[in-house]
Amino acid sequence: MEDKQIIAAYSKTLKKLRIEKSISQEKLAFKAGLHPTYISLLETGKRQPSLSVIFRIAKELGYLPNEFVKKIEEAA
Amino acid sequence: MEDKQIIAAYSKTLKKLRIEKSISQEKLAFKAGLHPTYISLLETGKRQPSLSVIFRIAKELGYLPNEFVKKIEEAA
Repeated sequence: MEDKQIIAAYSKTLKKLRIEKSISQEKLAFKAGLHPTYISLLETGKRQPSLSVIFRIAKELGYLPNEFVKKIEEAA
Repeated sequence: MEDKQIIAAYSKTLKKLRIEKSISQEKLAFKAGLHPTYISLLETGKRQPSLSVIFRIAKELGYLPNEFVKKIEEAA
């Protein structure tokens, strides 16, 4: 799987799960201790999350990190 | 879980799985398309992997990304 595919699958999955949870980008960023615009950068594929960001965002969306990563694999 | 714990758990898990597979840091870096010293930086916690690096390394160690992340969670 190419990096581009992985990043696109992450962006798609993050947006879908965030909307399912009815939480704004800014609120999710705040709860995960991230810059207010960071979620937008992730959802548009302009940034890649680091390991700790993956863990933080998964938690705020109510998933274990491995569950969240599995959804990314499924979306790729 | 604090970022420091996550990074420490990743470093520990990466080293353990790499040794179990009897592959050198340099060879794993080469197969994953990374700089030869990057695996050492990851194993000593000096760098955090990005999403695509997590996927690449998991693949070269013979794991699905979510399986690899689950091992990190278990090591934390």
